[in-house]
Amino acid sequence: MAERITKRETDYSKWYTDIIIQGKLADYSPVKGCMVIRPTGYALWEKIQKYLDDMFKETGHVNAYFPLFIPESFMEKEAEHVKGFSPECAVVTHGGGAKLEENLYVRPTSETIIWSMYKKWIMSYRDLPILINQWANVVRWEMRTRLFLRTTEFLWQEGHTAHATYEEAEEETLKILEVYRKFAEDYMAIPVLIGKKSESEKFAGAKHTYCIEAMMQDKKALQSGTSHNLGQNFAKAFDVKFQDKDGSRKLVWATSWGVSTRLVGALIMVHSDDNGLVLPPKMATNQIVIIPIWKSDDQKEKVLNLADNIKKDLCQDCSVILDDRDQYKPGYKYSEWELQGIPLRIEIGPRDVENNQVVIVRRDTREKIFVPVIELRNKINNLLVVMQKEMLDKAKAMREEFTFMINDYNEFKKVIDEPGGFLYSHWCGSVECERKVKDDTKATIRLIPFEKKKEKGTCLVCGEKSEGRVVFGKAY
Amino acid sequence: MAERITKRETDYSKWYTDIIIQGKLADYSPVKGCMVIRPTGYALWEKIQKYLDDMFKETGHVNAYFPLFIPESFMEKEAEHVKGFSPECAVVTHGGGAKLEENLYVRPTSETIIWSMYKKWIMSYRDLPILINQWANVVRWEMRTRLFLRTTEFLWQEGHTAHATYEEAEEETLKILEVYRKFAEDYMAIPVLIGKKSESEKFAGAKHTYCIEAMMQDKKALQSGTSHNLGQNFAKAFDVKFQDKDGSRKLVWATSWGVSTRLVGALIMVHSDDNGLVLPPKMATNQIVIIPIWKSDDQKEKVLNLADNIKKDLCQDCSVILDDRDQYKPGYKYSEWELQGIPLRIEIGPRDVENNQVVIVRRDTREKIFVPVIELRNKINNLLVVMQKEMLDKAKAMREEFTFMINDYNEFKKVIDEPGGFLYSHWCGSVECERKVKDDTKATIRLIPFEKKKEKGTCLVCGEKSEGRVVFGKAY
Repeated sequence: MAERITKRETDYSKWYTDIIIQGKLADYSPVKGCMVIRPTGYALWEKIQKYLDDMFKETGHVNAYFPLFIPESFMEKEAEHVKGFSPECAVVTHGGGAKLEENLYVRPTSETIIWSMYKKWIMSYRDLPILINQWANVVRWEMRTRLFLRTTEFLWQEGHTAHATYEEAEEETLKILEVYRKFAEDYMAIPVLIGKKSESEKFAGAKHTYCIEAMMQDKKALQSGTSHNLGQNFAKAFDVKFQDKDGSRKLVWATSWGVSTRLVGALIMVHSDDNGLVLPPKMATNQIVIIPIWKSDDQKEKVLNLADNIKKDLCQDCSVILDDRDQYKPGYKYSEWELQGIPLRIEIGPRDVENNQVVIVRRDTREKIFVPVIELRNKINNLLVVMQKEMLDKAKAMREEFTFMINDYNEFKKVIDEPGGFLYSHWCGSVECERKVKDDTKATIRLIPFEKKKEKGTCLVCGEKSEGRVVFGKAY
Repeated sequence: MAERITKRETDYSKWYTDIIIQGKLADYSPVKGCMVIRPTGYALWEKIQKYLDDMFKETGHVNAYFPLFIPESFMEKEAEHVKGFSPECAVVTHGGGAKLEENLYVRPTSETIIWSMYKKWIMSYRDLPILINQWANVVRWEMRTRLFLRTTEFLWQEGHTAHATYEEAEEETLKILEVYRKFAEDYMAIPVLIGKKSESEKFAGAKHTYCIEAMMQDKKALQSGTSHNLGQNFAKAFDVKFQDKDGSRKLVWATSWGVSTRLVGALIMVHSDDNGLVLPPKMATNQIVIIPIWKSDDQKEKVLNLADNIKKDLCQDCSVILDDRDQYKPGYKYSEWELQGIPLRIEIGPRDVENNQVVIVRRDTREKIFVPVIELRNKINNLLVVMQKEMLDKAKAMREEFTFMINDYNEFKKVIDEPGGFLYSHWCGSVECERKVKDDTKATIRLIPFEKKKEKGTCLVCGEKSEGRVVFGKAY
């Protein structure tokens, strides 16, 4: 607690790093580009895993595990895929003391190794669909890394499904997009836009890519999850066919989808403040800390007595910590728990014991609320629900504030720099105009919204006609 | 189901592989020595993870994640460690399209990378103990691999703790050994011996290693988990000291401990039979399958009606499947579910509906039990408990049957080959005698038991005096 966290307005990027390092969420490792996820940060990833894994299983998916290594020749089988991923791979050339006959790539993603297995497993329409997910580590050699947001090694889940028809694959792609949206909003309290990526931004090897995109407090966009309809590209590359009911042999349809430890970065960036982490109740390991305050031994006994009783019966689905450490003053404890982002703090002093009340402090608003002990249980349960909702609302309000409809390219260039945000503009659909915007402003098309306004317009850059607006933003 | 499983007495090794491949627990991958863990097999690993993770957390441990890659120079810091692991490492020499300045080893275990971080995190006695566990993949280049038992890449958990005193570290090492023993016996129904490894068999870099050892059905031993007291070896290698209460600076004490996907192999080998997998109820994803039997549509309606009602209210903590597929006959379904190891099968036919009874078949004993519907719920809950216990008892009885006290080396050589098993013999403690036994018979010292019989004796090989018997066996 010795160091101060840099304020967001002073240096947003340093603020983010301070929260992580001082909050002991993660640390830099001696391996270039790789981070260590410390227990406090890993607990957030465990929450993400638990909720998402349940949602995957509820929608019929099962987990499996495929090898870390991918033979070089496999990567080369799908043309777009190898072009996209090969330059950023780590390559194993030696094993067991000898040079390998064929180099092995450390998986940057697992489509190729998985589809080589699907070829063995899929014979007939009876073997479909396959709805497999994998929790794993992947490696993509990154030049500029940032804790959680972009690291050479990261943890993720990757779903890989196989279907008999295009329609089924498309349905799966959209079903998972909805799982991601629901998880982001209902659990992480992060509002997301959903839509389709442009051709330049889609996954290397996909037919098309859907995504969820969130706005961070610096108004930059963070791609937070992607769901790809892979068409028959990998089935073609690995010659995976099935015998259909009518006896004919057909190529299999595929999807893949993933979210990563990057979500922990999003959680930090969307909600935290200059005092540290702020967590929505559903993502916190502990929802409540009770801090007893005393000066004399006599006071201590009474205060701890009440604190103990309160702790025992506070709420059903939440975890409560009683911080009765002797060696630290209350003020120190407040700062420490604020840094850790614990949603609610209950302060109990000698006067509170007399008045049979306590003080609750909300981490997100820092509002102080005096509550009679008898009403505490109800109040707490209610506050946790309210807080979960209001944190989402607050993030949504910020996103609305920095969402602009822009028709003029000069105005676009100004607004994207100051104040920044999500800019809805018309685009003709050409790669050239998309690239010009990127070169001029660093903004990219974050997504083509589903609820694309059906208004006709003219392209921001070239003036050609456009069928609807797309969302531009600067991205992490 | 088309293929038959090879009988154990025909070819034990092929039997094991048949169970795995035909039961779709795992498959060979195109990457040398690496396996694919299929959903049915991975579900067993998820059970192991869930139970153990809860036990680790109950004993104060937290999870974290450290990098997959270890710089070559780090491996070299602990002399024994590098000697033991370096020859079996996979080495990354290229990343992001360029040759690396320093080679990176894919972790064979994480002591070195973790202790380089502990150096940053440990300043004072207040920072101790650190009780961290990691769920991860590791790679050890293996020449001869076997599904689950020995693969180049495998999944495991590795605990790495740091302590202020030797005594604390030793207490931790033994605490985890007890967690492993309890988990193996109470959940996996696998009886284990506990004890200490000889110097030749201990972990490369440890002061001493404790282990749990189980007997498979072919009477071979499987090392199923290890817990190492690392002394101050890694603290010395990475110069990790803490300031103690008295102001002096001291080297930190360490432990590490792990179990891996090898446990899935143990689970298969200990309990399964010539019809497929046999699972103790606590390890099965589904405990019960209901198989309705009918010939006419009229029968079908009545049978399914009863099956549905039974399914709804069968038991609290277990999962029930109703296999009402039309296209398969009951006999086919029986074989299929037997192969999958589901603990209890309930058969319901038209005559059972009339008599208001059902037939339960236990997977382990294949015993048929007629039960009135009204008693079903109680009977099921009772059977699951009994079966869990009896499977452990049966494995224990087999181990007892093939445990021998051997004093004569000629007899030893005979018994270790036929019938095989755990041989308790006197050993003088010398590496030479240990090696001679291995060279002559392929048997190794599996462990030095804690409850070492305090009887004096003379070494099996050299006749020198011995303080107690150790356990010899042939091992996987």
